[in-house]
Amino acid sequence: MLESSHATYLKNLVGEGNFYDDPPHLSAYAYDATKERHLPDGVIFARDEHDVSQILAYCNTHKIIVVPRGAGSGFTGGALSVRGGLILSLERMDQILEIDEKNLIARVQPGVINKHFQEVVQKRGLFYPPDPASQDQSTLGGNVSENAGGMRAAKYGITKDYVMALRAVLPNGDIIRAGKKTIKDVAGFNVAGILIASEGCLAVITEMTLKLLAQPKLRQSAMGVFNSIKEAMEAVYKSMASGVTPVAMEFLDSLTIQAVEQRFNKGLPIEAGAILITQVDGSVPEQISWQLQEIEKHFKENGCVDFKIAQTLQEEESLWFSRRNASQSISIYGKKKLNEDVTVPRASLPALLEEVGRISAEYGFAIPCFGHTGDGNVHVNIMLEDPENQLEQGQRAMEAIFKAAIALEGTLSGEHGIGLSKAKFMPLAFNESEMALFRRIKQAFDPNNILNPFKMGL
Amino acid sequence: MLESSHATYLKNLVGEGNFYDDPPHLSAYAYDATKERHLPDGVIFARDEHDVSQILAYCNTHKIIVVPRGAGSGFTGGALSVRGGLILSLERMDQILEIDEKNLIARVQPGVINKHFQEVVQKRGLFYPPDPASQDQSTLGGNVSENAGGMRAAKYGITKDYVMALRAVLPNGDIIRAGKKTIKDVAGFNVAGILIASEGCLAVITEMTLKLLAQPKLRQSAMGVFNSIKEAMEAVYKSMASGVTPVAMEFLDSLTIQAVEQRFNKGLPIEAGAILITQVDGSVPEQISWQLQEIEKHFKENGCVDFKIAQTLQEEESLWFSRRNASQSISIYGKKKLNEDVTVPRASLPALLEEVGRISAEYGFAIPCFGHTGDGNVHVNIMLEDPENQLEQGQRAMEAIFKAAIALEGTLSGEHGIGLSKAKFMPLAFNESEMALFRRIKQAFDPNNILNPFKMGL
Repeated sequence: MLESSHATYLKNLVGEGNFYDDPPHLSAYAYDATKERHLPDGVIFARDEHDVSQILAYCNTHKIIVVPRGAGSGFTGGALSVRGGLILSLERMDQILEIDEKNLIARVQPGVINKHFQEVVQKRGLFYPPDPASQDQSTLGGNVSENAGGMRAAKYGITKDYVMALRAVLPNGDIIRAGKKTIKDVAGFNVAGILIASEGCLAVITEMTLKLLAQPKLRQSAMGVFNSIKEAMEAVYKSMASGVTPVAMEFLDSLTIQAVEQRFNKGLPIEAGAILITQVDGSVPEQISWQLQEIEKHFKENGCVDFKIAQTLQEEESLWFSRRNASQSISIYGKKKLNEDVTVPRASLPALLEEVGRISAEYGFAIPCFGHTGDGNVHVNIMLEDPENQLEQGQRAMEAIFKAAIALEGTLSGEHGIGLSKAKFMPLAFNESEMALFRRIKQAFDPNNILNPFKMGL
Repeated sequence: MLESSHATYLKNLVGEGNFYDDPPHLSAYAYDATKERHLPDGVIFARDEHDVSQILAYCNTHKIIVVPRGAGSGFTGGALSVRGGLILSLERMDQILEIDEKNLIARVQPGVINKHFQEVVQKRGLFYPPDPASQDQSTLGGNVSENAGGMRAAKYGITKDYVMALRAVLPNGDIIRAGKKTIKDVAGFNVAGILIASEGCLAVITEMTLKLLAQPKLRQSAMGVFNSIKEAMEAVYKSMASGVTPVAMEFLDSLTIQAVEQRFNKGLPIEAGAILITQVDGSVPEQISWQLQEIEKHFKENGCVDFKIAQTLQEEESLWFSRRNASQSISIYGKKKLNEDVTVPRASLPALLEEVGRISAEYGFAIPCFGHTGDGNVHVNIMLEDPENQLEQGQRAMEAIFKAAIALEGTLSGEHGIGLSKAKFMPLAFNESEMALFRRIKQAFDPNNILNPFKMGL
């Protein structure tokens, strides 16, 4: 419970409809996509940057924990108030402030939904590439705080590649600007760079200047069917080392193919070891066909038994249907899934998938995999049929997979962040000097440790 | 002077030929491209990461200033030991450790020369885009520490876009790793992101994992002649907003054209208000011709009176000759040049150049300009005929240009960094909260302030 003097102050600050400490509201802000529940002591909605500054200055003085929150669609508990305090919702700061077509730049508030933003810029012939799977719900502020990825990363990179400048409020209430509306800017430390992916632990982002691209004029998709996952994984990195850069290069393993087919009956090749679905884009038709020819060549040299190019928009939709419905379909294998987004250098994908197969056999869990192989990012899903009795064993299997990824020079998280869920695995990836440096950086921004504490293993 | 016990310790640490405190060596390491001179107390050459760690740990204990140095080709004094201490040269850590063609990644030591690296990867059909004008001398470690740009930034971005991971030594001697060999990595704070462009003030970089691209198969260059600089600047941003992304879009103003012509007699259009030189690349001929057609269209719609496409390699060389020789040619306008790399959003280039014209008239200095207009980065050169008597006035003119750039949402530095030369201008760009945050970040990495202190206005 917040002391009533704090509640009164905060309610007066933001107005009646923007502060709550009644049980229904606290309950509504106790969850995120992890399905863990942690009740906060209050929920406050900032209307603008000035509100954010006043709220933080007050909470810093009174040592009240503040957990910034966008849509709460994160997979690692970053927006959960694990030890009480205030949820600071940025949902109502949801304005697209400027679309500058001359410089291909947009200025937005943190509460803008990714998908909405994509649609608005698309109407002007522009393109914002980062497309996390959560794009229908997740906010751009959340995307920046977690450095969200998506399917187009192989060609277009991830959120950090589109952040030109930020405005943010430090825990003491100070408003800072970081970065510039220019491609080149080397004045001062790269504060914008460290706020990206900082999971709301260093400052509260109040405005973002994002880079846009002109919309590519043409695109086309294709699918390759492989007898074995190993061959498919080799086809991925060999295609991409050849000089083609597809927008996306996604894969489904055999368990995932079978699950989608069982659920939707789309005529997928259920005998296949894996399928790869790819998309290329460009400005002239010859560029499209050159890329598809190169990919077909490398696929076939690496065991692709069927290669199909989508000739119509409908065929394209149908190719992508299986990938988009992979995540929900695999629920046939168990009541609970432990899903993680391990990422390795592309050429290590064959070894990673081999290791996952070994761990699946050792622990006796089905582990369907799919994901963004174009950038080495695999969604690994450990399926538990009896979650109550298998959870601990499942987590041990996941730890074995993390260890395998790190041994292959990969990372604990390609997209989801660390938050609470992966905090305990941080020592697998970082040594004591590195963890100590993280703590000193946290302290440089947040000496009272009020902003989203107890996250990232800090 | 270093105390003799320190000199003895350090000499024993790295061996006879890797430590010097005799006047000729101190003299040789007292300069950089600023032509300022600051004598250090000693010069030490690290042979490996272990040396760097031992040197820093010792100097941290004894509070000895350490200034890391690559080739000393910087324009802002970042490698100068402004108040004595030790120059830590990374020149001898110059190995290319790995070129991983499967993942399109290279691992290098900091002392590798940019141009050498470019040539080595080119022989394997690979491509490292960042090409600062200093590429023949400057080291990759220096490039990362300054976040070097170059001509290809319009399409390919700058050094930070190619740094995947770093190894570095903290001032206390701790060795840390930051970043990963993966496109996606969101585990822990983005320490690599803040080390880039930190001008050797936070840690000493000992190894870099850099992203490579496949070499583009085709490229072609073109030149457009304009009657006025304003029309040329409008042609730049309108071309680039149309969806074409040229590799480079460089400009020369009329003073620069006349200087190059006077010096080299190449038949340049000396009546022109400006010329733009551009290059496009791609995989298929149709992609090249589409881009050149688009650029020609936008150039001609914006006052281009002559558009010429290079048809042979020789013609291409000849187009680029004037741009490459711009910097040395403008010396006809004065004995000393104050050259700065102000950068604004592209659509503000017409306004910036207009303002430079006004300042030139007001202060009575010739101010030839050229540079990377594709990314809004203009090299502004205030030419002093009588440096001794005009320096102060020249610096005031430069300050007026900085203020104009910042008023146009630009930056103090697009490429050169802050170092010593621009330190006094930091308050033009950053408020007290932002400067205080920079100082706290510096302290988080370097609590004893031994690493390249007194730089960046900190």
